[in-house]
Amino acid sequence: MRAALFKAPRTIEVGDRPDASISEPTDAVVRVALACVCGSDLWYYRGDSEFEPGPIGHEFVGIVEDVGAEVDDIAKGDFVISPFAFSDGTCPHCRHGITSACANGGFFPMNGDGGQGEAVRVPLADGTLVPVAGNGHSDETMRSLLTLSDVMATGHHAAVCARVTDGDTVAVVGDGAVGLCGVLAAKRLGADRVIALSRHSDRQKLAREFGATDIVEARGEDATAAVMELTEGVGVDATLECVGTGQAMDTAFAIARPGSMVGYVGVPHGVELPLQEMFFHNKGLLGGSAPVRAYIPELLDDVLGGRIEPGRVLDYETDLEHVADAYAAMDERRAIKSLVRVGTA
Amino acid sequence: MRAALFKAPRTIEVGDRPDASISEPTDAVVRVALACVCGSDLWYYRGDSEFEPGPIGHEFVGIVEDVGAEVDDIAKGDFVISPFAFSDGTCPHCRHGITSACANGGFFPMNGDGGQGEAVRVPLADGTLVPVAGNGHSDETMRSLLTLSDVMATGHHAAVCARVTDGDTVAVVGDGAVGLCGVLAAKRLGADRVIALSRHSDRQKLAREFGATDIVEARGEDATAAVMELTEGVGVDATLECVGTGQAMDTAFAIARPGSMVGYVGVPHGVELPLQEMFFHNKGLLGGSAPVRAYIPELLDDVLGGRIEPGRVLDYETDLEHVADAYAAMDERRAIKSLVRVGTA
Repeated sequence: MRAALFKAPRTIEVGDRPDASISEPTDAVVRVALACVCGSDLWYYRGDSEFEPGPIGHEFVGIVEDVGAEVDDIAKGDFVISPFAFSDGTCPHCRHGITSACANGGFFPMNGDGGQGEAVRVPLADGTLVPVAGNGHSDETMRSLLTLSDVMATGHHAAVCARVTDGDTVAVVGDGAVGLCGVLAAKRLGADRVIALSRHSDRQKLAREFGATDIVEARGEDATAAVMELTEGVGVDATLECVGTGQAMDTAFAIARPGSMVGYVGVPHGVELPLQEMFFHNKGLLGGSAPVRAYIPELLDDVLGGRIEPGRVLDYETDLEHVADAYAAMDERRAIKSLVRVGTA
Repeated sequence: MRAALFKAPRTIEVGDRPDASISEPTDAVVRVALACVCGSDLWYYRGDSEFEPGPIGHEFVGIVEDVGAEVDDIAKGDFVISPFAFSDGTCPHCRHGITSACANGGFFPMNGDGGQGEAVRVPLADGTLVPVAGNGHSDETMRSLLTLSDVMATGHHAAVCARVTDGDTVAVVGDGAVGLCGVLAAKRLGADRVIALSRHSDRQKLAREFGATDIVEARGEDATAAVMELTEGVGVDATLECVGTGQAMDTAFAIARPGSMVGYVGVPHGVELPLQEMFFHNKGLLGGSAPVRAYIPELLDDVLGGRIEPGRVLDYETDLEHVADAYAAMDERRAIKSLVRVGTA
């Protein structure tokens, strides 16, 4: 089968690999319809984080092609969403809703196959995959279903961790695909006012369409001053940190009001937490790798019901053979997020 | 009037100061009945944190002796509890329940008088002081009321920030007065199982009487191993960090299960947060200076109703003239917490 292969920073190629196949009785094989490139893939692409050469990608939807003997809830022919992490759904951490910390799970491509390829062996298929009801979904719906494999669920995680509730004033630091999904998630959870920190006009536009009521273009201390002015010196009720850099985290804590939470979902790179500020103003931090599997059911209802359309963050597309272009478009900020058309659903 | 005076590390003396008096129309003057020494006073006593020479102490109960022209809700003769911070009760932070971050408030002795003295000028009296119904309270009740000025409310804050809920397995790191109050608070909030990390037999005994179901005597990695064994490798549902050292914080995060919160109330000294562990296992942190004023009403009900007896942490007592002994007893770990009898209520 054909699959994207990480060779070295800035070198993603498409090559031939052995066909994905069942190796454990709890496995399924999914033939990929749509995949995409994640902001976290860019850390590897840019050489900012180590990555083992080989298959890459962890966001995909597709059709179940085969299942192992112990798979009960997933059947051949099902159209499924795969979270970026696989999980058994039964260990104590999964039962507590933290499927991304499953005692028996892991992250794609730890399974051997990456999500950016023609097919993927999915371990722990019953716990991991979510079948989607109906068929003949529009391309718009398909794109939104794809975002449930990571970015929409991750933006939602930031909002949940920041404890967004009805009537809140919320700030979202970061205007990447996750930040934009964070805006959508905050609005969905009842925020009255959503302040998006964004410097790019195309992203500002989408942020507004997703529910942002205010845009702050500044960065660093100027951004803090702007948000404090918008909130009459109080700070916001909930802050979503969707970048992972030290500056983004500093801004997040500077604009959080005392007693509020910063929900963070960008893998921290060079972050030093302002512990004295956190202590003396009772500002909390919660977040991390999103337990996507636990969130998919409720978000899926809203996508199929047409109430949210997170797939709009996918503003560039290509096919598997041109996956390198998908990376380059995001790296060069020509794209918010790149869709890779692999097969048909 | 007579008052404790911090002269230098390890030198606390009692001296004469000008009588406490009204200087703002929102002030009250409280004649102190009972005061006590806080674990945070020991940071100064031991020279671990800077402290301006002069009055000291921030935990006291007593009788209102005088009120300013703009004080409406507090009257001469009221028996009151003072939180360790003064707050107006009306600013946005107070309205959000974070009275310790009041936009117009501060911490004793920023007001000019310390709590370890015959009388205290209390700024923002209407927002700060809590009158106690009834009179002729027993000495046991009086001691428990005194703990509402800080340690019991602070232990409660740790439990609230750690999100203790019905049926939880909770761990409390630290067996000082705050840690012991944290045990009591966790039990009060519905914890099924409370694991107290304590190496002192007298404190273990009180921890058990306050509701601890398990005691772990080890420290560091051995403590982590013991708690993980008690929880079958899962970790605890909520962790209270009641020390403030790097080792205590490391242990707290090591024993917290994925998706859970560490509630911390010890002023951090030399703490480096394990951010990668926090991120990849979704372990959160919330806490800080407790908004004592916001918590007193509900805790007061339980003290007056005889349902909690936090005053039992006060296991040493002396009078104001011997306040130096109160510090020495805590410093030398002869006392969990020292009561200072100043006047009568």
